[in-house]
Amino acid sequence: MKLMVINGPNLNMLGVREKGVYGKKSFEEVCKYIESEGKKRGNDITLFQSNIEGEIINCIQKAYYEEYDGIIINPGAFTHYSYALHDAIKGVSIPTVEIHLSNIHAREEFRKTSVTAPACIGQICGFGEFGYIMAMEALLIK
Amino acid sequence: MKLMVINGPNLNMLGVREKGVYGKKSFEEVCKYIESEGKKRGNDITLFQSNIEGEIINCIQKAYYEEYDGIIINPGAFTHYSYALHDAIKGVSIPTVEIHLSNIHAREEFRKTSVTAPACIGQICGFGEFGYIMAMEALLIK
Amino acid sequence: MKLMVINGPNLNMLGVREKGVYGKKSFEEVCKYIESEGKKRGNDITLFQSNIEGEIINCIQKAYYEEYDGIIINPGAFTHYSYALHDAIKGVSIPTVEIHLSNIHAREEFRKTSVTAPACIGQICGFGEFGYIMAMEALLIK
Amino acid sequence: MKLMVINGPNLNMLGVREKGVYGKKSFEEVCKYIESEGKKRGNDITLFQSNIEGEIINCIQKAYYEEYDGIIINPGAFTHYSYALHDAIKGVSIPTVEIHLSNIHAREEFRKTSVTAPACIGQICGFGEFGYIMAMEALLIK
Amino acid sequence: MKLMVINGPNLNMLGVREKGVYGKKSFEEVCKYIESEGKKRGNDITLFQSNIEGEIINCIQKAYYEEYDGIIINPGAFTHYSYALHDAIKGVSIPTVEIHLSNIHAREEFRKTSVTAPACIGQICGFGEFGYIMAMEALLIK
Amino acid sequence: MKLMVINGPNLNMLGVREKGVYGKKSFEEVCKYIESEGKKRGNDITLFQSNIEGEIINCIQKAYYEEYDGIIINPGAFTHYSYALHDAIKGVSIPTVEIHLSNIHAREEFRKTSVTAPACIGQICGFGEFGYIMAMEALLIK
Amino acid sequence: MKLMVINGPNLNMLGVREKGVYGKKSFEEVCKYIESEGKKRGNDITLFQSNIEGEIINCIQKAYYEEYDGIIINPGAFTHYSYALHDAIKGVSIPTVEIHLSNIHAREEFRKTSVTAPACIGQICGFGEFGYIMAMEALLIK
Amino acid sequence: MKLMVINGPNLNMLGVREKGVYGKKSFEEVCKYIESEGKKRGNDITLFQSNIEGEIINCIQKAYYEEYDGIIINPGAFTHYSYALHDAIKGVSIPTVEIHLSNIHAREEFRKTSVTAPACIGQICGFGEFGYIMAMEALLIK
Amino acid sequence: MKLMVINGPNLNMLGVREKGVYGKKSFEEVCKYIESEGKKRGNDITLFQSNIEGEIINCIQKAYYEEYDGIIINPGAFTHYSYALHDAIKGVSIPTVEIHLSNIHAREEFRKTSVTAPACIGQICGFGEFGYIMAMEALLIK
Amino acid sequence: MKLMVINGPNLNMLGVREKGVYGKKSFEEVCKYIESEGKKRGNDITLFQSNIEGEIINCIQKAYYEEYDGIIINPGAFTHYSYALHDAIKGVSIPTVEIHLSNIHAREEFRKTSVTAPACIGQICGFGEFGYIMAMEALLIK
Amino acid sequence: MKLMVINGPNLNMLGVREKGVYGKKSFEEVCKYIESEGKKRGNDITLFQSNIEGEIINCIQKAYYEEYDGIIINPGAFTHYSYALHDAIKGVSIPTVEIHLSNIHAREEFRKTSVTAPACIGQICGFGEFGYIMAMEALLIK
Amino acid sequence: MKLMVINGPNLNMLGVREKGVYGKKSFEEVCKYIESEGKKRGNDITLFQSNIEGEIINCIQKAYYEEYDGIIINPGAFTHYSYALHDAIKGVSIPTVEIHLSNIHAREEFRKTSVTAPACIGQICGFGEFGYIMAMEALLIK
Repeated sequence: MKLMVINGPNLNMLGVREKGVYGKKSFEEVCKYIESEGKKRGNDITLFQSNIEGEIINCIQKAYYEEYDGIIINPGAFTHYSYALHDAIKGVSIPTVEIHLSNIHAREEFRKTSVTAPACIGQICGFGEFGYIMAMEALLIK
Repeated sequence: MKLMVINGPNLNMLGVREKGVYGKKSFEEVCKYIESEGKKRGNDITLFQSNIEGEIINCIQKAYYEEYDGIIINPGAFTHYSYALHDAIKGVSIPTVEIHLSNIHAREEFRKTSVTAPACIGQICGFGEFGYIMAMEALLIK
Repeated sequence: MKLMVINGPNLNMLGVREKGVYGKKSFEEVCKYIESEGKKRGNDITLFQSNIEGEIINCIQKAYYEEYDGIIINPGAFTHYSYALHDAIKGVSIPTVEIHLSNIHAREEFRKTSVTAPACIGQICGFGEFGYIMAMEALLIK
Repeated sequence: MKLMVINGPNLNMLGVREKGVYGKKSFEEVCKYIESEGKKRGNDITLFQSNIEGEIINCIQKAYYEEYDGIIINPGAFTHYSYALHDAIKGVSIPTVEIHLSNIHAREEFRKTSVTAPACIGQICGFGEFGYIMAMEALLIK
Repeated sequence: MKLMVINGPNLNMLGVREKGVYGKKSFEEVCKYIESEGKKRGNDITLFQSNIEGEIINCIQKAYYEEYDGIIINPGAFTHYSYALHDAIKGVSIPTVEIHLSNIHAREEFRKTSVTAPACIGQICGFGEFGYIMAMEALLIK
Repeated sequence: MKLMVINGPNLNMLGVREKGVYGKKSFEEVCKYIESEGKKRGNDITLFQSNIEGEIINCIQKAYYEEYDGIIINPGAFTHYSYALHDAIKGVSIPTVEIHLSNIHAREEFRKTSVTAPACIGQICGFGEFGYIMAMEALLIK
Repeated sequence: MKLMVINGPNLNMLGVREKGVYGKKSFEEVCKYIESEGKKRGNDITLFQSNIEGEIINCIQKAYYEEYDGIIINPGAFTHYSYALHDAIKGVSIPTVEIHLSNIHAREEFRKTSVTAPACIGQICGFGEFGYIMAMEALLIK
Repeated sequence: MKLMVINGPNLNMLGVREKGVYGKKSFEEVCKYIESEGKKRGNDITLFQSNIEGEIINCIQKAYYEEYDGIIINPGAFTHYSYALHDAIKGVSIPTVEIHLSNIHAREEFRKTSVTAPACIGQICGFGEFGYIMAMEALLIK
Repeated sequence: MKLMVINGPNLNMLGVREKGVYGKKSFEEVCKYIESEGKKRGNDITLFQSNIEGEIINCIQKAYYEEYDGIIINPGAFTHYSYALHDAIKGVSIPTVEIHLSNIHAREEFRKTSVTAPACIGQICGFGEFGYIMAMEALLIK
Repeated sequence: MKLMVINGPNLNMLGVREKGVYGKKSFEEVCKYIESEGKKRGNDITLFQSNIEGEIINCIQKAYYEEYDGIIINPGAFTHYSYALHDAIKGVSIPTVEIHLSNIHAREEFRKTSVTAPACIGQICGFGEFGYIMAMEALLIK
Repeated sequence: MKLMVINGPNLNMLGVREKGVYGKKSFEEVCKYIESEGKKRGNDITLFQSNIEGEIINCIQKAYYEEYDGIIINPGAFTHYSYALHDAIKGVSIPTVEIHLSNIHAREEFRKTSVTAPACIGQICGFGEFGYIMAMEALLIK
Repeated sequence: MKLMVINGPNLNMLGVREKGVYGKKSFEEVCKYIESEGKKRGNDITLFQSNIEGEIINCIQKAYYEEYDGIIINPGAFTHYSYALHDAIKGVSIPTVEIHLSNIHAREEFRKTSVTAPACIGQICGFGEFGYIMAMEALLIK
């Protein structure tokens, strides 16, 4: 499978930012982990990170034109207000899985609502970087 | 009239994205249609599309410095949360018309509220790409 | 096209009522303007105004039985609570356009919600009496 | 029993309006059905329909002065906002049953609330025109 | 002063309807009381009652064309949802006083909000039919 | 018709509990009444009562496996929060009627919302134990 | 009649504070006006003003022990949150009228709700200092 | 690992109930699938299903006393209101994963909120019966 | 006095579950404490615990038939949604006291609302197991 | 124990004010009862009552400086809005118990929320003046 | 400049109350700091503290009559509900700055809203006692 | 101190946009003012402005890697919805001050809430460009 793995705002600060919540691994380590686990499962992984909402939309559209089989997206804080991201995911017909490192239901009130999840096929949260691997496997099954 | 026509996120996917809602014409076809209809009415049309909220703000500010007579904007999903776009429109004193291809009142709950419309002179929704032409005529009359 | 143009409560007071908001033209002048512009475009226009919600429903039903091609309605304040009008529009299968003289999004909070628009094909607001002409053209295109 | 059967806005469009929701029988057929079923049960039925809220209030008051034994009312969309109808029913002391053809709980959000039902003795919804007959029987028992 | 005294829906049932809340006097008695008290104060009183929202709007507009000096209105249950009545009062520039027989703040939740009062110069509630006389005196002072 | 009649929590206390609201008949008397009226109409009635939400779900599933033609359910207070009951009713494809002894619209605020009714074909409230018979007749007609 | 006239916080700044809203008369002038108009009507007026919520409660209790016949209260901003004042008025059985100089329904959102009015017999707003005189007359009638 | 797999109300109707939403496999097939996949991964699986909220709480407590290493729970509709289940999960210190067959974010409004998820370590939704296997793997990693 | 002491879901986990919040004593110790303190005061105590809502309702009904003088209930998390428990308490006419070990006002938002307390004579919270003894004494006084 | 017993606004009207709700005993009798019961239990009781929020804060601060062991407070209507009282209780580190004579959960909606209780160790309501004695005993145990 | 520095309820407990939130300095130390820093900047500082809302209003009015050039106010918990304080500040035309020691946006939900700030020229929060000095400087610049 | 001063969307239009609200100085003048005042106080100032949310996040992250001592941020309209900005500020451990030129509490409803302020150490609003200097001084003190 040809998979696009998208990380949203502030995820590039992993290992720096609030380690109690997001874990101690650096973003680079998480990226390598995703790539090597992806390869193991025979997937062709493209990694993309941006703090800019519109660039993530561009990336989703690129996935459409380059015929990706699946998208794994951790929209970071955009999860809670970016209807534009919702529309982008809905607009391309690629199966998309939303993942979150932390259990968003056990944190601040505003993190309990996802405006992007309704456009995805499913959501995974609370399992740290293993969530990306779970998403891969879920896309394989679909 | 010198008119800036701005299209927001995901509108470049017209003809690809949810055709049942947005129509079958591709974005290029819609652009050409706007340009030729604009020319017919003696307008000088500049077309701009971006998935990035801030670039749209930049474009609105450019319209100010380059003394455009009017702005026609389809803010896409930004309509529902971009107070920054609201402030951008309010900040320049160019008459602006908000348009939507679909009837936003007949869709999901979140699409019924526009945070950008209060900064515009008016809003048009539900008439597909013809909405852009209606907006042109409305700007002429104003 | 055979078009029914319906004006709701207090619109007969145009030119008298809050000129700052609704413009200085009298209701008679607006009616004549709609008729002559309608004729120009080859339409057969029937004008109807009432302050009584139920008479407007009667008029919509009449439009059904007399096989009108389109309805242009300015429901005035009924826009914000008349679910009966919503049902009337939805019940007949005539394409209907909702228009407002002022930009309802830039006024009191209660004017931002339309309970009738979801039953229409589209909505136009903020362009004064020219909105009726825009609606005519939109119906032609549909 | 002397019964007033009142139908509110748009119910005269039965058989025309949204047949999927309200059934295929025309309003005339439903009226005849109510009358004949009423007669079978020895009731003296008066049928009234109006799209005008105030005329329905007039009719309820008339039922008071002409000493009706019961009222069966389908307030249509008035159900959801007409506090005036609520006051009218509460003001006369005639046992009143509210009926709806469709199951209002299984439709749009706004149809789930009835402002008129608190003034009635009971409510029946979801059983099409048979609801009127059920209401008759319920009034007999009371 | 030339005064229009308007009573809304169900007020014609005074003396019949919920005497505990609205008092025992019949509507006719209240009308006579208003007229005689009005005359005593040298006013020229016109009384109007209707259960139909639009007819009340018609009456307010008539007051404008016939150059009344003041309006006293008891909008009954329309108080709580008729934005059309609000617009009608705001549209004519006649000083208007809203009155209620009962203390609307001490009853059901929905009666605590008035959508018509913001268009009036003031509101009086809780003093039974004497409220109309108070309104007259208040209009004299203004 | 083979009918399952289900009574939810506290209904077994009829005749004991709040007689002013629910009537004086004991639960046994109501059960006998339902059975005899059911038999008269040629129905095969099974009565079930439980204070335990899950046992009611079990009973609904049993009705599915034993091929009942209809379900009449008075979910008692479960009406207002048991989404599990909603899912149970929706999950089996047996026509189900929700009934309430009292007029739930004329009582406390929380009783005005039914989370189970959207899964039923209709709802009847306010007619005491006669409601069960009305439900039977409604199921016959369907 | 022995009447207690209570003015709440900031009313002693009349003539100083926001004259556009509250009028140009000084508080002393308003007090004299109330006293002389009260005397004219044969009332025995005690005037009290305080910026301290609890002192107003003390005053209401004093009115109880000294057997006043009525209370006229302008609770100022306490109107919108002082449940303690509500309880004080409800606790003594003296007829109380709430008055406001301005039309509180036509100002900020928070001024539209009165938590004290439900404990009074009625409310008057929008008629400036004449409101106090209206309240006196209303108390006479009761 | 010793794992308790708990299925809540109506899940025993899988393959019967709303196949479009929940898939065509019967509950027995899903159970076997979970068991065999569990065994493959060297887990000791106990399966439990109940329509009764309290029995599920009992089962969670049993998992505590019998020293299970993890719980996988699909609380069905209890997800949306059972604070008792939330407390049960929080009360035992066993890592718990919440799973849902369908994407709960893309369905009715009430399904978007989970009151049980804050007590779990994570949540998985939208991947059908494969979700149970994903949960197993996630528990292994933790 | 013959007293029924009812403990709701998860209270049997006392001493196990969240000791910081609920104290270190085991449920058995708390039970013994209640019994011995009850005996000291000459009461005849029956203790009941269940995680099943409906069994608690059964127990309340049993208290009615066996003529208990009082009920002390700690409804656990049912406090916040079980309208069925509310109805059960209201339905029997036995004085009932609601107790909570922790101060429910100082915890999560959802714990601040009790749907069962309005059916009780009073509520005690925040005093650990001593709350049960306080409830006993309160019942004696009543 | 050295205990400060504080009574808030309108509690000095006990025996006068709404006897149906608060009981027939006068405030003086309640005070004596508290004192004598306090003495019996070997406590040193100081009683304080004020209708002025700030004086109650002063009293709480005095309790801090004079090293009281506990505070029993009935904040009256301040319960529902005085965040200042909340801060005062939180600011001193004296164990504080909130009591109410009536069951605040069974009255008006606004009485169901306490903004002061989160700063206390517990709350007691519904047991009349005996609540003060219960609070004493609870403080002893703590 | 002649400046009035007002501290609201519980601020006199600084150094005693919740040191983690408000800092370790005593109120006296903070007062001296404000005075000496004020003097340094050539200001004439009057300090006022009260736990009584109305006395703070009195003080604001005194500032008006004694022609102060500016007010610096820390309204403590009154910030969140005292519309009377709002009116007092708005009523005098002295530039007023609201300050808070802690960052009110990072604490409990109720502390995020200020009803007094809209009447001030600006607000400063989160900088401890230095906030008072910042306010002084801001007043100088204005 | 090494300080990053960040200005969000539309602030580059200062002197052009809504001068009544934001002042007459151009953005360049404000920048120079900040720089020269910063230099005076011995600070090393970096100025950054962008209309693009993600570029501001990039800038905050850069401040982290380049070891800035403080951040002063005017997030413009992003204040009201950018949870991504909130996360960015929270993620780096640099003391950050939020400033606004106007008093955001005295404007539209949506401007009263800041989603970014909870991640900052404090907030300053209403003092025009002087707010930046106040923020500098506040950072020095911290």
